[in-house]
Amino acid sequence: MGKVFFYMTVSVDGFVAGPADEVDRLFRWYFSGETEIPIPGSPTLRVSKESAEILLDASRTGGAMVTGRRNFDIAQAWGGKPPTSPCFVLTHSVPDDWAHEGSPFVFVTDGIERAIGQAKEAAGDKDVEIGTPTVLQQALNARLVDEIHIDLVPLLLGRGVRLFDQLTIEPTDLEIIRIVPATGVTHLRYRVVA
Amino acid sequence: MGKVFFYMTVSVDGFVAGPADEVDRLFRWYFSGETEIPIPGSPTLRVSKESAEILLDASRTGGAMVTGRRNFDIAQAWGGKPPTSPCFVLTHSVPDDWAHEGSPFVFVTDGIERAIGQAKEAAGDKDVEIGTPTVLQQALNARLVDEIHIDLVPLLLGRGVRLFDQLTIEPTDLEIIRIVPATGVTHLRYRVVA
Repeated sequence: MGKVFFYMTVSVDGFVAGPADEVDRLFRWYFSGETEIPIPGSPTLRVSKESAEILLDASRTGGAMVTGRRNFDIAQAWGGKPPTSPCFVLTHSVPDDWAHEGSPFVFVTDGIERAIGQAKEAAGDKDVEIGTPTVLQQALNARLVDEIHIDLVPLLLGRGVRLFDQLTIEPTDLEIIRIVPATGVTHLRYRVVA
Repeated sequence: MGKVFFYMTVSVDGFVAGPADEVDRLFRWYFSGETEIPIPGSPTLRVSKESAEILLDASRTGGAMVTGRRNFDIAQAWGGKPPTSPCFVLTHSVPDDWAHEGSPFVFVTDGIERAIGQAKEAAGDKDVEIGTPTVLQQALNARLVDEIHIDLVPLLLGRGVRLFDQLTIEPTDLEIIRIVPATGVTHLRYRVVA
């Protein structure tokens, strides 16, 4: 059985997007190095060797993802090609256009535990990636997260969408798995202590 | 002229204290290693070699500190021995008991710029340390901070006193000075880009 991990780029003051969901400044580290990583349908990333290893590692181990409806809408369904498939979308109502046979999306209306459970089943031995803060918070509150991976970027956004905003858990210890300093970003990887 | 730096221990979810100002869990890294650092009037710290260098560096370069009245009150005036002297306290009203001749405290009632200005003058070639988030936020908003040093500890507090809460600045770039992974803590040091 794989693990459930969260992975996201975050500013030093704890934001994952600006007030209008803008993320350009957060992702400048994607173009701050010499190692090329081609992404289908996107500009080729150029990152440091250290960052390339981290990014490729995440893409190799991911077997399914869980995200929220807002993220799905903002990303415009990634044009039908989510970063990891299958992609489970927590939502109150199922949209018509992606619920067809062969869609990479599965819409889950009965809560975080069902969404993570279905994603784990789909991922098999691979990992389940959580790709949005609201889902991370729900999953942490339900004690369903094994690891938190943060790409910390040297930036103060001041306001916007906070990574940690709605936690209702008691104080929870993390364990440092590894810290990787790199060009324009610091890769932080933690295990959630049960 | 020295620099103005902020230095504090912060949880991964961005808190510097719990809801009742409790900090015990945040400072467990003070007792997670083998290198002893004696602190007058406090238990001797035992940290990793990497952390000891960081802590001694900060204490060597500090020539004055600026803090807020709430921090001064919570710390009970450090029994008259603030971590760095002189200690400039931003306040609306000057308390009677520490305003005497020879006191290590200087109470400043006319704003952040005056407080930092007086502290820089007192520090001379040494640095001015900001020791509380409200003062950091005011100083960042007034563009008076040169460096931000964070000791990031593997912990989710969930709620409490946020490090970054009242920023009104535009998005501001930082520059990574150095990242030092250590036992139970990651030392992050950033320069504020003008």
